[in-house]
Amino acid sequence: MGSLDTNPTAFSAFGDDASAGFQPLNPDDVRSYLHKAVDFISDYYKSVESLPVLPDVKPGYLRNELSSAPPTSSAPFDVTMKELRASVVPGMTHWASPNFFAFFPSTNSAAAIAGDLIASAMNTVGFTWQAAPAATEMEVLALDWLAQLLRLPSSFMNRTGAAGRGTGGGVILGTTSEAMLVTLVAARDAALRRSGSQGVSGLPRLAVYAADQTHSTFFKACRLAGFDPANIRSIPTGPETDYALDPARLLEVMQADVDAGLVPTYVCATVGTTSSNAVDPVGAIADVAAVFNAWVHVDAAYAGSACICPEFRHHLDGVERVDSISMSPHKWLLTCLDCTCLWVRDTHRLTDSLETNPEYLKNDASESGNVTDLKDMQVGVGRRFRGLKLWMVMRTYGAAKLQEHIRSDVAMAKMFEDSVRSDDRFEVVVPRNFALVCFRIKPHGGGMTEEDADEANRELMECLNRTGKAYLAHTVVDDRFVLRFAVGSSLQEERHVRSAWELINKTTTEIMQDKIVAAVE
Amino acid sequence: MGSLDTNPTAFSAFGDDASAGFQPLNPDDVRSYLHKAVDFISDYYKSVESLPVLPDVKPGYLRNELSSAPPTSSAPFDVTMKELRASVVPGMTHWASPNFFAFFPSTNSAAAIAGDLIASAMNTVGFTWQAAPAATEMEVLALDWLAQLLRLPSSFMNRTGAAGRGTGGGVILGTTSEAMLVTLVAARDAALRRSGSQGVSGLPRLAVYAADQTHSTFFKACRLAGFDPANIRSIPTGPETDYALDPARLLEVMQADVDAGLVPTYVCATVGTTSSNAVDPVGAIADVAAVFNAWVHVDAAYAGSACICPEFRHHLDGVERVDSISMSPHKWLLTCLDCTCLWVRDTHRLTDSLETNPEYLKNDASESGNVTDLKDMQVGVGRRFRGLKLWMVMRTYGAAKLQEHIRSDVAMAKMFEDSVRSDDRFEVVVPRNFALVCFRIKPHGGGMTEEDADEANRELMECLNRTGKAYLAHTVVDDRFVLRFAVGSSLQEERHVRSAWELINKTTTEIMQDKIVAAVE
Repeated sequence: MGSLDTNPTAFSAFGDDASAGFQPLNPDDVRSYLHKAVDFISDYYKSVESLPVLPDVKPGYLRNELSSAPPTSSAPFDVTMKELRASVVPGMTHWASPNFFAFFPSTNSAAAIAGDLIASAMNTVGFTWQAAPAATEMEVLALDWLAQLLRLPSSFMNRTGAAGRGTGGGVILGTTSEAMLVTLVAARDAALRRSGSQGVSGLPRLAVYAADQTHSTFFKACRLAGFDPANIRSIPTGPETDYALDPARLLEVMQADVDAGLVPTYVCATVGTTSSNAVDPVGAIADVAAVFNAWVHVDAAYAGSACICPEFRHHLDGVERVDSISMSPHKWLLTCLDCTCLWVRDTHRLTDSLETNPEYLKNDASESGNVTDLKDMQVGVGRRFRGLKLWMVMRTYGAAKLQEHIRSDVAMAKMFEDSVRSDDRFEVVVPRNFALVCFRIKPHGGGMTEEDADEANRELMECLNRTGKAYLAHTVVDDRFVLRFAVGSSLQEERHVRSAWELINKTTTEIMQDKIVAAVE
Repeated sequence: MGSLDTNPTAFSAFGDDASAGFQPLNPDDVRSYLHKAVDFISDYYKSVESLPVLPDVKPGYLRNELSSAPPTSSAPFDVTMKELRASVVPGMTHWASPNFFAFFPSTNSAAAIAGDLIASAMNTVGFTWQAAPAATEMEVLALDWLAQLLRLPSSFMNRTGAAGRGTGGGVILGTTSEAMLVTLVAARDAALRRSGSQGVSGLPRLAVYAADQTHSTFFKACRLAGFDPANIRSIPTGPETDYALDPARLLEVMQADVDAGLVPTYVCATVGTTSSNAVDPVGAIADVAAVFNAWVHVDAAYAGSACICPEFRHHLDGVERVDSISMSPHKWLLTCLDCTCLWVRDTHRLTDSLETNPEYLKNDASESGNVTDLKDMQVGVGRRFRGLKLWMVMRTYGAAKLQEHIRSDVAMAKMFEDSVRSDDRFEVVVPRNFALVCFRIKPHGGGMTEEDADEANRELMECLNRTGKAYLAHTVVDDRFVLRFAVGSSLQEERHVRSAWELINKTTTEIMQDKIVAAVE
């Protein structure tokens, strides 16, 4: 046997200079690069307030700043950092800016960033329990903790103790879209089985439902899962329900589909729509869906975080009767991207559709049935250790601080709302449920039409965003152009909201003055 | 008008103690928490070599170590870090360990971790160009750089300069599975349109193809996209092609499906299968697929990274004739999770299926058609700034160091392979293409059967993994239990490979000795 010990000199891959090789995790480099990154972040957070929120760059700008071809040789890390500062930062839309009021904020915290950093360094891939026991169990624990903060029924919680697995459980995914997709697929497959479909032959008969205010990504997820575009129902809403889904209307639409030979399969209810923060009535929707044995998913991506406060929890009333719920701590629970939590009442309904069992991943723990293999609850196999940052946020700040964070944002939004309401030129378009204020310049003064107001609002938004001192996005509610003012960027303080209101006030005065001058001329 | 200026005292959300509020990004905390995290990482990398690679913990262990309920009050960050060290680290499977030889390594580097850290802190959400111009353009640039390193045809590259968008382009996703899913959906929709299907009525007639060695996640992605399980073809392979897909066999299967009235839609070719690193012949497969107008995707998740070296590039020959290719720098290009690069020859075929256009995301840049909105090339809407870490890796290390990294891993694998080959007790089961060695104890000595050898190999793997000094996974090739020895963990040096071989050598001697004793008794 020519074992190694008998011929050690032949056993070298590199010859004599092996020790001089490239070490991508050289300890000095790791420490030095990360300290430089921390310095950058520290400087960035200090200066971001003074940077234009929305950059003034043209498409393709970066290609003119950086080399169009990759370098052959290595460079000192300082060169990389210099290019980051000189070329990348000036082209960023600064989501971390306290003057960012667009979309929903991507909130963040020191604990979350530290947790994410450690996850990047450990770089574990927790597809099975065995491949990362602590990462899997930390994710399970973090989800159970958050479920408790949200007062979700225990039927949604993981059970991996001595009693073995129950049917409830959760998983951390990258986006709400993935949560929708995996539950849609589970509901689809269950409906096909129930209807005795051969393979997917019954797919053209399945129908899915959501309010027209539901995020566009839901309708996309339905198409990804193969639902027939003709059977994806976008149910109209209106001011009579503050743009929430009307259960009576849902019942009519589902019954009509049954009468036409279709199979109602899935209903998506939203708690806090992206457009205007409408809240679909979860319990009433669950009752309607139960008539048809359809899966009900609750998308609480943004507003779910608020439900850790008792005063907002009622928005989830009825959740004990739905099949799944998702919310994204990367939106409003101080946990940096990406982190979407999905809980389901019966994980077997997910794993029936999503389980894989290749030889190279087989192991005793999985075969014992006593562990959760999280790959079987998501689209892919690989996965970051996302549970760490979420746990670190809850462990470090505790429930009280997290509630304080929500309440502070809501209080600032209410303050802004009060200012809008106290100014006759504006109207608040829909009731403010959380920390988003939907408002607009309303027709005022002589002869100003709704169309004139739309134009003024569009002009106001563009003027505000061009200043670099604030960034607001818009929506359309009831055919009217509406400004969305979303409070909550994690560096935001009351003074930033105050300044934004002053800027809106002043800019509106200028716009209206210009319009009067133009009309007179 | 009750503007703010006229009534400033009323404009406070919190009253007098506003300044005492909770600041999740307090500058002192950010710096302090991140420095503690860097210290942890530094210590971790120094000590991980001596930690058991595979932990000795039982399912549910973490719940016994940590509180089962979230804390109400905040705690010093040191408490969080202490629990991390005391309870989480001992339950980790250490992918960063230099003694990790399982699966494929998740390689990493100082530059990547720093880039990922900065991305976490900036926390930008680049769904549209306007929402993050620099993040979008950095991703486009990084993909073009990597395409150049891989010598992909320019038809796969992004074009966002003055000439406007071409048809080629790429996107960074979380996993290969997502790359498969979005291209499957694009191919599915195109096939349905071509076949004149009403909605998805034609879906049960579409068929998809891959070798039986293709990753299980491909077959799962097909089911997610709604393909009929009966039409998902897993084509047998064997030793005559070293477990690569035989184009002649593919042609037969596709033709038989056409003859049976099915519509061949998509073929997945793998460059470097997970089980044994087989390489499907890309060009020949593209030629077969072209006969049927089927989409061809190349999954080069692991081995794609090697193709930055001229001596491995031939494995991608013919790629200019495929529709899409994906590879994961988080596997073998020193970029921490998650980072999967997907390039497609015609991005419109992706965006036709994946585009959304809700009112609240509309903006002038998107409407100009001169920018890439990356949400339209992925499942979800939200997305991390993943391009930064990938660019930082290429910018800092340069092509030469990255090639050195690949060659060093391959040289160590070859060294290991040579040791195996020089020992009569073992056999190398398939040719080693990259840095994975598939080997096993072969029947040797008096009367040892193949089944005995399978049992000995299983025992060898379990013994090795129980020592904590090495972690290997297995596969099954041609019905034989085979050990996979994957070189490349980023802290790995030649001495670790040497130690692992010595351990394998010694453990095998012990196992065989025990068997002889048992036989004699």
